[in-house]
Amino acid sequence: MRLAEHGDDAVDEADLAPAGAFSPEERAAVYRAIHARRDVRDEFLPRPIPDAMLTRILEAAHHAPSVGLSQPWNFILIRDQATKTQVHDVFLHRNEEAAQMFSETRGARYRQLKLEGIRKAPLNICVTCDRARGGRVVLGKTHQPDTDLYSTVCAIQNLWLAARAEGIGVGWVSIFDPDDLRPILGIPAEIAVVAYLCVGFVDQLFVRPELEARQWAERLPLDDLVFEGAWGKMRG
Amino acid sequence: MRLAEHGDDAVDEADLAPAGAFSPEERAAVYRAIHARRDVRDEFLPRPIPDAMLTRILEAAHHAPSVGLSQPWNFILIRDQATKTQVHDVFLHRNEEAAQMFSETRGARYRQLKLEGIRKAPLNICVTCDRARGGRVVLGKTHQPDTDLYSTVCAIQNLWLAARAEGIGVGWVSIFDPDDLRPILGIPAEIAVVAYLCVGFVDQLFVRPELEARQWAERLPLDDLVFEGAWGKMRG
Repeated sequence: MRLAEHGDDAVDEADLAPAGAFSPEERAAVYRAIHARRDVRDEFLPRPIPDAMLTRILEAAHHAPSVGLSQPWNFILIRDQATKTQVHDVFLHRNEEAAQMFSETRGARYRQLKLEGIRKAPLNICVTCDRARGGRVVLGKTHQPDTDLYSTVCAIQNLWLAARAEGIGVGWVSIFDPDDLRPILGIPAEIAVVAYLCVGFVDQLFVRPELEARQWAERLPLDDLVFEGAWGKMRG
Repeated sequence: MRLAEHGDDAVDEADLAPAGAFSPEERAAVYRAIHARRDVRDEFLPRPIPDAMLTRILEAAHHAPSVGLSQPWNFILIRDQATKTQVHDVFLHRNEEAAQMFSETRGARYRQLKLEGIRKAPLNICVTCDRARGGRVVLGKTHQPDTDLYSTVCAIQNLWLAARAEGIGVGWVSIFDPDDLRPILGIPAEIAVVAYLCVGFVDQLFVRPELEARQWAERLPLDDLVFEGAWGKMRG
């Protein structure tokens, strides 16, 4: 049965279903994934990820919202140790550049932090965004050209949460220039490199952000970040 | 007990806990949120969101990963109908500009789509990114300055999934120039406007993306989007 009669935009009744809240147990599971997700650097186990599990995680990414349903993402799976070593070499170079940007004290502490699991994780995933996908004019992208990058990040967060539910840890390494990865992975110039992820089973995880546990930074109070009605207007 | 002895970076044993997969039921709930989440335009109910529920959803956003634990996001809650109408007026203007960018046939179909629930949703949330938060040098942002925007998008996706579990729909409206919102919401020039969200209870949701149901765009096969080892190398 047609619900609306405006040409091609008519939708079938079967396309709408009752929404409603999840059960308390389901809701708790969603919050558990959100709160127990961590950025993993060192806790990876070598055990490979079963194909069916990896497909579930990638399907989760693929079901992220995307501007105009453009689905601009690609996922390059990297398991080859030689490729990982090339990426790690680039990281080492860029990480030393990064260390030098901090003050002397902070730079010394920075050098003590382990910030990647590139070689330790059995799987690396480079997530890209095809800036041209969906054609010249994409619904929702007309006034905000970077919304395709944002869609790709939504996919990454979906992947991260699905992985957590599977017992898989994910670490996002951003300490290189995205262009560093092009020659190693053969990524064309018109494709944006959004993220480089280290992925693998973990036996332990930090109970709070590792940078908080290591006293590098502190959790901000949520109340300071929420405004009512306009910028800067505190609630209550 | 100290696990590692390298000065301030030592972490307490209590900071690490066993990870492991969720139970099958918990895992299914996480996947349900991911797959049943929709971009909502028209299904909003006027019923206000209870404060405790809204706090849970915002806490979910606030527990997103952020580059260097910089937590660069702010959330401006908009409930005032006059403000929403101002935003809606801007949308109408920009949406007409957008319609004219498409071909004649596509533009006519574009005009038939409902693309926002600004006035219908009881709550709107403008999500911003403070480009200066965390100081002059932020760990992980040294070579990729836009990772703070990406962190903010991770927060948005967390919010969206938590909302779905609560029975709350979310619609991301991107059909305006972010600068259009500055005078309305008093957002300073140095703060990036990342998203404008319409938020409210929903009774029904599309079972697949609305743009797919309305035959505007199609779901791409995941297999076409996954490469093995390097860009363009298909699996198997």
